[in-house]
Amino acid sequence: MKITVLGVGLIGGSIGLAARERLGALVSGFDPDAGTRATAIERGAIDEGHDEIAAACEGAEVVFCAAPVAELPELAEAALAVVGAAAVVTDVGSVKRAIAERLAAESRFIGGHPLAGAETAGVGHARADLFDGARWYLTPTDRTEGVLYDKLQRVVAEIGARPQAIDAGAHDRMMAAVSHVPHAVANALASEAAGVLSEPGEPLPEAGPSFRDATRVAGANPAIWGDIFIENREAVATGIDAIVAHLQDAAGIIRSGDRTAVEAWHRRAGERRRELLSEGLSGGELTELRVIVPNRPGIVAEIALALGHGGVNIEDMALHPASDMRSGAISLFIAGPEHADRAVALLGELGHDVSPVGR
Amino acid sequence: MKITVLGVGLIGGSIGLAARERLGALVSGFDPDAGTRATAIERGAIDEGHDEIAAACEGAEVVFCAAPVAELPELAEAALAVVGAAAVVTDVGSVKRAIAERLAAESRFIGGHPLAGAETAGVGHARADLFDGARWYLTPTDRTEGVLYDKLQRVVAEIGARPQAIDAGAHDRMMAAVSHVPHAVANALASEAAGVLSEPGEPLPEAGPSFRDATRVAGANPAIWGDIFIENREAVATGIDAIVAHLQDAAGIIRSGDRTAVEAWHRRAGERRRELLSEGLSGGELTELRVIVPNRPGIVAEIALALGHGGVNIEDMALHPASDMRSGAISLFIAGPEHADRAVALLGELGHDVSPVGR
Repeated sequence: MKITVLGVGLIGGSIGLAARERLGALVSGFDPDAGTRATAIERGAIDEGHDEIAAACEGAEVVFCAAPVAELPELAEAALAVVGAAAVVTDVGSVKRAIAERLAAESRFIGGHPLAGAETAGVGHARADLFDGARWYLTPTDRTEGVLYDKLQRVVAEIGARPQAIDAGAHDRMMAAVSHVPHAVANALASEAAGVLSEPGEPLPEAGPSFRDATRVAGANPAIWGDIFIENREAVATGIDAIVAHLQDAAGIIRSGDRTAVEAWHRRAGERRRELLSEGLSGGELTELRVIVPNRPGIVAEIALALGHGGVNIEDMALHPASDMRSGAISLFIAGPEHADRAVALLGELGHDVSPVGR
Repeated sequence: MKITVLGVGLIGGSIGLAARERLGALVSGFDPDAGTRATAIERGAIDEGHDEIAAACEGAEVVFCAAPVAELPELAEAALAVVGAAAVVTDVGSVKRAIAERLAAESRFIGGHPLAGAETAGVGHARADLFDGARWYLTPTDRTEGVLYDKLQRVVAEIGARPQAIDAGAHDRMMAAVSHVPHAVANALASEAAGVLSEPGEPLPEAGPSFRDATRVAGANPAIWGDIFIENREAVATGIDAIVAHLQDAAGIIRSGDRTAVEAWHRRAGERRRELLSEGLSGGELTELRVIVPNRPGIVAEIALALGHGGVNIEDMALHPASDMRSGAISLFIAGPEHADRAVALLGELGHDVSPVGR
């Protein structure tokens, strides 16, 4: 089987590595940059490198377009113009409706989105196991030929991912809710805090852990996020409108001074978050454990080592440093009640105060 | 010197421990619960326990009211009714304007707010070093007697904290911006995502790391947060209004499809966050390092150990698990450029991919 990757960066390179190792595929790569092509060949991500799309696509059964979101439609159109009737063309962009609509007439195009690997860039970071176990959304339409969808989803599964079909619009609304809108909200929080704290006479605070967490992604990678906000602008703007409505409700409840209503609103939000996170994770319901610790070099290691030796994996972690940076709390998120109980016991043996949160 | 703590929980107990150890003070404690009083005496947090406020306050020079926010005004009034003219009464509530206005006529009351120790409760977790290096806001007014302010700020400093005077209203607006409003926004994000994902036919996503971070505090401790939202309702509701305005602007920019404007908006927010966090921390500008890692027991320990051995402290940390929970990235926040450089070198020696974010 011949597979082509158009754009040999982190994602394209990792597809190539996995397809060569696991499918024994011949992988052809297009990239405008000669140095990137050379690195990709050297790392075993592609068998052959091309600086023309047509040459790269010759004889390909599956073509992956792996470039910045804004460039994907043109790449896909160029590929569709040269591949045969039995070939399938897909992409890896994190926004799906715009490209699906633009290529709606093309029965050989199926949009895709692997939930993997946005943290770094470049074929130098490519790994054959990048997609192992990762969700890979595919957006077939009623024009999609079954045999092509089947071919694509088999390749996706064989390079280690878990394909799942989803409507392109539903995908974009979902990603807006769990990723794009939270990024926009983080921006608003950071900007507003900067405004409040720059008023004359206002001292700068030791910004709290909730502020750090809430704004961690503010301004993350403007080039990539510019693309995402633009390409998914309808779902993101609609999602922001919805958050605005929620916040206006919240301001009303808070202004009313009705403690029962405030507590009910607040409690419901916590329950909804726990339900969402628990559903999305395979290892069972997440328990948050708060551990009070001195904030010294080595303390995180001590805790993580103790849990690791006890066979307990830490699914997620957040440090809440005290303002002095010398003491604070660590939140550990552990999947499954048995593992959480074991973690409490192990941390207790180390002499740490541990409090489960929210149960 | 005799010091009284009204409410012997985590904060009151820690004040007592520190005052006894570091000032050699006689500490008298009021708590309605006999078991709490006994534990406090046993742990050395107080010398004597009382179930009546008047008895506890007899002869006190400084009285700390350390109870849930809603109960503080009554506690303070009860103390003011019985202490002498040379005594100062303060509180440790996280909202300051309401109590300052209620007690505006009282020259012996000065509001206070230590930024420490909200993670656990109870005198069982009290520590003499809880306030070491922590900011402790004090809200004197133009009626405050200088000698009483001086006495209070010296006691606060001697138990380890860094006192800072601030206007009560400015304090509340600042805390709204960096803590209370982010909590309300987390609630809105969690509720909205739950709404989107519960629509018929929508699959549940593997919720992204940005969603986890953005909503980590959603629904945190409804009793405490009910109090805070109610007591600081004006600043919180005003802060929410401001976030709504920011979000409406953002939705407009995003809907416009103007990529340059979107990127500029996004980039500015990131710059503002970095400025805020850098200002608020003593160890120099924070650098975020992203490390790509397998998500196995022990990996966090390995990294933290290597940095700890190298003398590099991790100020903050966030795990970004991939959807399969088998691989992901860790963000490490390191204070000071030299330490960040050393961390990059140490992690490189371990064979990890490290990318500094945003510089």
